[in-house]
Amino acid sequence: MKRYVAVCGAGDPAADTDALAYEVGRLLAEAGAIVVCGGLGGVMEAACRGAKQAGGTTVGLLPGQDRSHANPYVDVAIPTGMGEMRNALIVRSADAVIAIGGGWGTLSEVALAMKTGTTVVTLGSWDLPEAGGHSPQPAASPDEAVNLALDR
Amino acid sequence: MKRYVAVCGAGDPAADTDALAYEVGRLLAEAGAIVVCGGLGGVMEAACRGAKQAGGTTVGLLPGQDRSHANPYVDVAIPTGMGEMRNALIVRSADAVIAIGGGWGTLSEVALAMKTGTTVVTLGSWDLPEAGGHSPQPAASPDEAVNLALDR
Amino acid sequence: MKRYVAVCGAGDPAADTDALAYEVGRLLAEAGAIVVCGGLGGVMEAACRGAKQAGGTTVGLLPGQDRSHANPYVDVAIPTGMGEMRNALIVRSADAVIAIGGGWGTLSEVALAMKTGTTVVTLGSWDLPEAGGHSPQPAASPDEAVNLALDR
Amino acid sequence: MKRYVAVCGAGDPAADTDALAYEVGRLLAEAGAIVVCGGLGGVMEAACRGAKQAGGTTVGLLPGQDRSHANPYVDVAIPTGMGEMRNALIVRSADAVIAIGGGWGTLSEVALAMKTGTTVVTLGSWDLPEAGGHSPQPAASPDEAVNLALDR
Repeated sequence: MKRYVAVCGAGDPAADTDALAYEVGRLLAEAGAIVVCGGLGGVMEAACRGAKQAGGTTVGLLPGQDRSHANPYVDVAIPTGMGEMRNALIVRSADAVIAIGGGWGTLSEVALAMKTGTTVVTLGSWDLPEAGGHSPQPAASPDEAVNLALDR
Repeated sequence: MKRYVAVCGAGDPAADTDALAYEVGRLLAEAGAIVVCGGLGGVMEAACRGAKQAGGTTVGLLPGQDRSHANPYVDVAIPTGMGEMRNALIVRSADAVIAIGGGWGTLSEVALAMKTGTTVVTLGSWDLPEAGGHSPQPAASPDEAVNLALDR
Repeated sequence: MKRYVAVCGAGDPAADTDALAYEVGRLLAEAGAIVVCGGLGGVMEAACRGAKQAGGTTVGLLPGQDRSHANPYVDVAIPTGMGEMRNALIVRSADAVIAIGGGWGTLSEVALAMKTGTTVVTLGSWDLPEAGGHSPQPAASPDEAVNLALDR
Repeated sequence: MKRYVAVCGAGDPAADTDALAYEVGRLLAEAGAIVVCGGLGGVMEAACRGAKQAGGTTVGLLPGQDRSHANPYVDVAIPTGMGEMRNALIVRSADAVIAIGGGWGTLSEVALAMKTGTTVVTLGSWDLPEAGGHSPQPAASPDEAVNLALDR
């Protein structure tokens, strides 16, 4: 069965995290994984752009009700109308989460994934202590992040 | 932009409605529309099978948390874990809804779509009176259902 | 344990359905049941007003994010921000549903409750055929509606 | 209008955090605020017990579909059936969030509240850096936590 990996990060463009996200998206698509994200700009758009560059499939779970808010690299855009509650849907849709950069929305996705036992990999993101005997797995590069997320 | 059309119907296999759903899925895919559904069996599976036969894209928004419950013709399977609440997500994801057959879940999708101003086409489904000046549009065939849903 | 009964109906004021809803709310509160509703005007407000008249407790699950949109007779107002998706939350919160009047939102609540095996009583509302061997129970008066909802 | 304050923390009993939560619940109720929580044990139960001791009102938004899982100090129990997704509903329902203790679910509520601009007070909980120019407000005692949450 195909693997679904969520790439989580801020919607505002930022050169450093966008470059990481592009590479993560590209490597996930090369590995045959489906990229799930929040469907907007910044890290989400960069990850989708990378995935499409490698011929992959991208899914955007949008916070609002307007499908046209999806970035142009989203193949399947779902306007959830759930606002930030859709972060929980992104996590639930994913077999693993790669968090890039350090916003509060990203932290919510990391925490929800940790709570529900989903693999979480951080890349230039929140540095969190162990809780309940578990912590996210920090990666030093897009390549390592994808390998950890795909458990290979 | 691509059109998303939800095909709604019962999860239990039934020869008559499954045949209609297969044909609806096939015609939607031929018209370039993405088929959205609840991802399970019966009408949902038949619609996806038809869409894949014509090379289309299918999305399944599952009620549970287990992606493996998706039927084999779903391209993108989202385990929402929301139970019947996901019916509202199916409706929100769609530009139009085609309801096939007569279960209560199907009726909930028809009603939510009518409430939110989404086009609703019924095919061998609930026969509902006008309310608030609007009613679903009955279709006599898969071909008519798809034409009405795509407003062509 | 306390019984929770959802009173579902349109948000626009209408003399006939509002009078029924007021009486239903009053009788539910007298019976010790908690009244759950969508928190807005019309049938929802009338049911809450009736319940408060009898010293009951009222819960409003609002579609938007602004608590101040709750009608003044709601004791506990939850701004869900889920739009019409909150109809599924209303149904899930209730041990029984009393539907008053005939809008599409009301029909969605009736259908979701029927789908999930929740008792549904209709009062001047949709007249629906049996599906899957079950149908809503029509009541001729607020008194009968409350008796059916509380299974007494 | 009444203030709604969410008290967030782990469901497993722990003497230190439960004592803090009890006191927070009591002080919130004395101040006339409604206590919102996840409705289960541990911090949630202690906060509700404290609030009821002071004659307050408590709301439990449960993850599952079974109302009987609510702790005995919950006045209004809503079985959401949304799993961890209900954390977003708790945050949305609250004018302010007080986080007690350090689990992943609690962190998700802190992060969602920070993302949506809701006041967050931490008490013996996650120690988080600033992000986007904002950070939770640490409190040294239940009294300080309640004062910060109520902005007084």
